[in-house]
Amino acid sequence: MRRRSFIAAVAGLAASRSERASSAGVAPRVNADRLWRRLEQLSVFGRPAGGSFADGVSRTAFSDADVAGREYVLGEMRALDLAPRVDAAGNILGRSEGSGNGLFPILFGSHIDSVRNGGNFDGDVGSMAALEVVATLEESGVRTRHPLEVVIWAAEESNFGSGLHGSRMAVGQIEPGEWERVEDGVRKGDALRRIGGDPERVAEARRASGSFHAYLELHIEQGGTLDRAGVPIGVVEGIVTIDDYDVTVRGFANHAGTTPMDARRDALVAASQLVLAVREIATGETGKQVGTVGRLAVSPGAPNVVPGEVRLTVEFRDLAETTVTRLGETLKRRAAEIARQTATEIEVQASSRHRGARAHPTIQSAIETAATRRALRHMRLPSGAGHDAQMMAQLGPMGMIFVPSLGGISHSPRELSRFADCAQGADVLLGTILELDGLDRIG
Amino acid sequence: MRRRSFIAAVAGLAASRSERASSAGVAPRVNADRLWRRLEQLSVFGRPAGGSFADGVSRTAFSDADVAGREYVLGEMRALDLAPRVDAAGNILGRSEGSGNGLFPILFGSHIDSVRNGGNFDGDVGSMAALEVVATLEESGVRTRHPLEVVIWAAEESNFGSGLHGSRMAVGQIEPGEWERVEDGVRKGDALRRIGGDPERVAEARRASGSFHAYLELHIEQGGTLDRAGVPIGVVEGIVTIDDYDVTVRGFANHAGTTPMDARRDALVAASQLVLAVREIATGETGKQVGTVGRLAVSPGAPNVVPGEVRLTVEFRDLAETTVTRLGETLKRRAAEIARQTATEIEVQASSRHRGARAHPTIQSAIETAATRRALRHMRLPSGAGHDAQMMAQLGPMGMIFVPSLGGISHSPRELSRFADCAQGADVLLGTILELDGLDRIG
Repeated sequence: MRRRSFIAAVAGLAASRSERASSAGVAPRVNADRLWRRLEQLSVFGRPAGGSFADGVSRTAFSDADVAGREYVLGEMRALDLAPRVDAAGNILGRSEGSGNGLFPILFGSHIDSVRNGGNFDGDVGSMAALEVVATLEESGVRTRHPLEVVIWAAEESNFGSGLHGSRMAVGQIEPGEWERVEDGVRKGDALRRIGGDPERVAEARRASGSFHAYLELHIEQGGTLDRAGVPIGVVEGIVTIDDYDVTVRGFANHAGTTPMDARRDALVAASQLVLAVREIATGETGKQVGTVGRLAVSPGAPNVVPGEVRLTVEFRDLAETTVTRLGETLKRRAAEIARQTATEIEVQASSRHRGARAHPTIQSAIETAATRRALRHMRLPSGAGHDAQMMAQLGPMGMIFVPSLGGISHSPRELSRFADCAQGADVLLGTILELDGLDRIG
Repeated sequence: MRRRSFIAAVAGLAASRSERASSAGVAPRVNADRLWRRLEQLSVFGRPAGGSFADGVSRTAFSDADVAGREYVLGEMRALDLAPRVDAAGNILGRSEGSGNGLFPILFGSHIDSVRNGGNFDGDVGSMAALEVVATLEESGVRTRHPLEVVIWAAEESNFGSGLHGSRMAVGQIEPGEWERVEDGVRKGDALRRIGGDPERVAEARRASGSFHAYLELHIEQGGTLDRAGVPIGVVEGIVTIDDYDVTVRGFANHAGTTPMDARRDALVAASQLVLAVREIATGETGKQVGTVGRLAVSPGAPNVVPGEVRLTVEFRDLAETTVTRLGETLKRRAAEIARQTATEIEVQASSRHRGARAHPTIQSAIETAATRRALRHMRLPSGAGHDAQMMAQLGPMGMIFVPSLGGISHSPRELSRFADCAQGADVLLGTILELDGLDRIG
């Protein structure tokens, strides 16, 4: 109902063609209120009992909340005549045809699953903005030359041991034991069936290289760079490469009262030196690389027992793969030194590498043009977080648009992006689609 | 049966009096085989399924294994005519009368509860040696002037938040909320009833000050000092004072990929500095003081999240209470410095003080005399571990005998003391009892 009246209101634009709308600088603007309403509607799935929008969300992949949220999205996509389907990997795909012949679709979207105790912006903004862009174009009577394909990737957040599930399946990157992994007593293979996927037919979710014109994703920054700079639009240069290590420090557990200081082989003392070394390694050279020890577990873990073993994780990230590799080598060297000095053994095991990806220069320029046409300040920056976009970059030209996260807070109920910033981000997404729609092929 | 034949065999000694046996240097020797057999018999209660003596024991206080072990001890004490009783705190007490009039009993014993995954020596050696001493004296026909009182303290190991349960009750040191503490879903008050105690009548377990002639305890050292020195008998100078602190480091949890190094308030980086500071504080002055961070928990604890909060424990121990106090003050100063440098908040909360105790000089001398009479090398040393003896020192003269722990290993299935060392320790316990039996009162 509402949609029809909007369409009537903009009937005068019905005949305009996207190229003209774009080049003339009169591209339609998204309906900011409706975008926000969709974010609110989506937020109820996985909301803490008795909570409000401000209390964040736990819409972990494959959960009841995820299933309910996906049903909501499917309903919205049907209302937009996107004829949505769920592929064997659980990805939701909707499509509207373009006016051109033989042109590849412009693929755009994000994800709606969240971390446990996450916020209502990570993934949701890009997903709801994708729907809003389609609604706006439809209402405005703007028909693109390229087909438009909206994608809601399944299980983007880390879950069952690794993230980017849906986009990994789209590039055929199935990990060893992928379906046998268990979380909360459920096998991943069975979890996938809960959202309409099928591990046995997952190869069908694979996309061919070069099968889309461009992949675009709007996302919150999840860091504080845009917020601190007061810039509303981030033009993502690329997604960092992420190397993870599992480290085990083995000392010797003993009675804390009866073991003299000079007779100890304290695994936590060694591990603490390593934690500080990771920070030193990351800050020891210029650049934006980061290094983190996020998990650390002490065994046996009693106040009166000298720790015998510590397990911890180390993670390095940078846009340059060579930098990430070098930081890991330095880590191993420092670990060996610390082991010698503390009479412990330190085992550093590479657990995963998530290869980053560069955003396509043509798309970065198109985003800048779209922002400039809307008089929005913008800046280039790397994405420190992983995104489905890095998988899509393996298949074709990719670009991402960031909007500010207040205080840089993310993966938290306190995650927050301004109403206006989300709408402006959606406008830039729409504008970028129209810019790229003017090209038959991205060089 | 066995006991009677032994008595028959030593019938010739039946008339000797303890003073004479002692002063003449012909005090009886314990039956080393029988002592070892008792240690083996006790070891089955709480033994890992399918394991052997070498696999250690989990006889945690109030557990089924503890209840079964206590039944075994009660049976052995009945066989020795000690007429055992269980007091309201769950302590097992047996007594044999002396020949003198109006003399206070010599109290001796240890505990049979263990830590989870502990060894078969901590507490067990002193407990089984106490039975063996009584058996030996009985067989030898040696009757002491002072009554002999054997005690098996209940719940010595840390359990329900604090240790030394039975001896604390004996001095009336009930902690706030003692009976409401819950472990594995069981209230401590209910746990106590499982071993025949009664929290409502626990005041009856209290002993009057000066109500015993001496308290003696044989124990494994639990450290490596005697083993490294190759000395079989340790004469304990006293038990260290132990101060425990609960420390909370509050930073800010954030995405590890999107938060630049200079924008982080990483609670684990701050906590690691504190772990190293604790070691520096303990080793920064001469002396035998020790400092330990044994427990450390990171929140939220994901590889890709900058730690927002770390909770850890700090423990300082030394024979001198003033030293322990000073180390804690230094800790607080260093924590404040680290908090400033890392943009975190660090809260240092004193959680408990276990006051140590000095062994009585007369008893230390008596132990040395007993060892010398048996041509056993001995050395004085502090006890870095807490013991029930420190509670008894509040009520009367206390002394402890240590035997070597191989490699200083304790609170571990690998805890091991030599067969011969355990028997020699029991011999010195017996000898010390006879030395002290010669005194009406310890000055």
